[in-house]
Amino acid sequence: MNIMESSLLKHKEWKGKIEVISRTPINSREELSNAYTPGVAQPCLEIEKNPDLSYELTRRHNLVAVITDGTAVLGLGDIGALASMPVMEGKCALFKEFADVDAFPICINSKDVDEIVRTVELISGSFGGINLEDISAPRCFEIEKKLKERLDIPVFHDDQHGTAIVTSAGMLNASKVANKQFKDMTLVINGAGAAGCAIAKHFITMGMGNIIMVDINGIICDGDEFTNPSHYEMAKVTNKYHKKGSLADAMVGADAFIGVSKPNLVTQDMIKSMNDKPIIFAMANPTPEIMPDLAKESGAFIVGTGRSDFPNQVNNVIAFPGIFKGALKIRATDINEEMKMAASYAIANCVPDSELSVDNILPNAFDRSVAKAVAEAVAEAGIKSGVAKINN
Amino acid sequence: MNIMESSLLKHKEWKGKIEVISRTPINSREELSNAYTPGVAQPCLEIEKNPDLSYELTRRHNLVAVITDGTAVLGLGDIGALASMPVMEGKCALFKEFADVDAFPICINSKDVDEIVRTVELISGSFGGINLEDISAPRCFEIEKKLKERLDIPVFHDDQHGTAIVTSAGMLNASKVANKQFKDMTLVINGAGAAGCAIAKHFITMGMGNIIMVDINGIICDGDEFTNPSHYEMAKVTNKYHKKGSLADAMVGADAFIGVSKPNLVTQDMIKSMNDKPIIFAMANPTPEIMPDLAKESGAFIVGTGRSDFPNQVNNVIAFPGIFKGALKIRATDINEEMKMAASYAIANCVPDSELSVDNILPNAFDRSVAKAVAEAVAEAGIKSGVAKINN
Repeated sequence: MNIMESSLLKHKEWKGKIEVISRTPINSREELSNAYTPGVAQPCLEIEKNPDLSYELTRRHNLVAVITDGTAVLGLGDIGALASMPVMEGKCALFKEFADVDAFPICINSKDVDEIVRTVELISGSFGGINLEDISAPRCFEIEKKLKERLDIPVFHDDQHGTAIVTSAGMLNASKVANKQFKDMTLVINGAGAAGCAIAKHFITMGMGNIIMVDINGIICDGDEFTNPSHYEMAKVTNKYHKKGSLADAMVGADAFIGVSKPNLVTQDMIKSMNDKPIIFAMANPTPEIMPDLAKESGAFIVGTGRSDFPNQVNNVIAFPGIFKGALKIRATDINEEMKMAASYAIANCVPDSELSVDNILPNAFDRSVAKAVAEAVAEAGIKSGVAKINN
Repeated sequence: MNIMESSLLKHKEWKGKIEVISRTPINSREELSNAYTPGVAQPCLEIEKNPDLSYELTRRHNLVAVITDGTAVLGLGDIGALASMPVMEGKCALFKEFADVDAFPICINSKDVDEIVRTVELISGSFGGINLEDISAPRCFEIEKKLKERLDIPVFHDDQHGTAIVTSAGMLNASKVANKQFKDMTLVINGAGAAGCAIAKHFITMGMGNIIMVDINGIICDGDEFTNPSHYEMAKVTNKYHKKGSLADAMVGADAFIGVSKPNLVTQDMIKSMNDKPIIFAMANPTPEIMPDLAKESGAFIVGTGRSDFPNQVNNVIAFPGIFKGALKIRATDINEEMKMAASYAIANCVPDSELSVDNILPNAFDRSVAKAVAEAVAEAGIKSGVAKINN
């Protein structure tokens, strides 16, 4: 039985991967009077007087909404809100299992940016944070931007920022193993959608030397014409030396490659054309841009993929639970660049130098101490950068 | 320490009355691959092909949204979406504790009927049913009506229908104890808001002889002018003999009184003017229309209130958990009149004839067998009346 068949069977058994439980027994008049009428009037009135108390008197302080419109689900594309629910429930289960954060899936049956933004805005008072998930580009940029402007709780599109954070953590450690200096490296990113652009921006913040972005039309270069409006912005901040051409041209002399694109786009010749000890993160799912054995054969020094059956899995699950945990802990009004960087370093530091190797650049996805370390680092960075509403 | 103080303390301890947990452990690559990527793609694709499978492969089959706009919360009025959260969480805790139904609170920060309707419509795919709560009249009628038209899952405004069902169950048993025939009785309902109108409609369906509705302007009588549009409808179906006048006039010769109005509106003289063995449900909260001891002194045969510290508490908690449980069980597309009536009889029948007395007309609120009995009756009625999508 393959994983698709076994997953379907398991889903039939589970009948839902999340469950909403009561935190208070209600077996007597007294318990009912405290949890519900008439006593519940008092916490209501307290929140009416001081809205901040919603974080003390309701579950909001630990509650994240996982929000999608079902337009870019896994590698499946636009399967719609209803069909995306198993992924969103899975995400919520991960939040709880890895960081004891309560998360609830909300699948919005609309593709209209303003309608989605307004829906989230209207229901946001029930939550302490918003995790956007599997929303297609460029709509995801606009939705995130508008929500960040309108809400005073963190809004975080995991496909962008979670991916960027985990990838950068892996690259920090990979460069250490390969003895490369982050600030001197040339990095090729293949795929200039939501994930690719977010990775580029985050790596620039992290100080990466030179980034060359490549999409289906070739290298993105300032001065070119683009159909995707965000590529004008990317062209301005990447490709320092105005390189032009194809993916093969971009790869010549590069130190590292990150693929968030399609299977099998990278050839052995491309790897051979790269600088010494090339680092390859081929993260297309389920089939990478180049299979790890082929990459290694052509001289790749370190290879990471999105898959759990090869070494160096670049997996968002080591980032988002801890990031939200940290943001919730300090009632952050935002998850800003400082917090994202802190998360990258915290994840990288979860692998002690003594354990770093070409096949071990990222912490074990099932190590629960990772989320704790990330949460602490994110909370600290949030306090320092002034987005914390509480300071403990 | 009074109940308000103790409830506030408890809420600070609880830090939320609900919690979202994972139903699947995620401690190995295999478990992660089944619950999340890559395996989760399969249930997504199955739901995309057949939307009905969302009930088998996600939590939807057992999940109710508790939705409010915070405009009519308890006796507190329009305290807003955020401040209403403790009540909604309490409601969700009751759903879980009493019927093992998962419920999640959604507080919508808008008072615009169409915006509320659209918001619920857009997120409804995540849920198996919608419980509307504490929404002010007449907006609650319009919101419920529009949602019922647009959604193929049950929509139920508990303040209306839950109250009507429990009240009618109490009245069925009270009339038995008082040896009155439901179809021959005259009932005065004081208060013609959402609850009062819903009670009147449900009692008409149940065959109550004659209902006289009274509001702040006196008896509602066909031919009069009303400010509330729903009163024209009520005037047509109540007050058979076109009685006019005040509450005191309405009470003369009546068999029963139901108050969903304000404290202390009923006098001892009014009770004395009623027919033999008058039945009084004085449900204003927290102070009833007349205190039970005063009512009894004036000859009331049976007295019920909304309070837990007097006999015969008329409490929605004995209705809504079982009603939704039954509706979810058969994937009902609606909670219709047949199902509501079945719930009324099922609740009434939970008190065996041998245990019926003037102080015991309704089942114990903490008896978990009530929700089971209600669920079974509601499911059966749903199947018979053709709103069931599954038949087990």
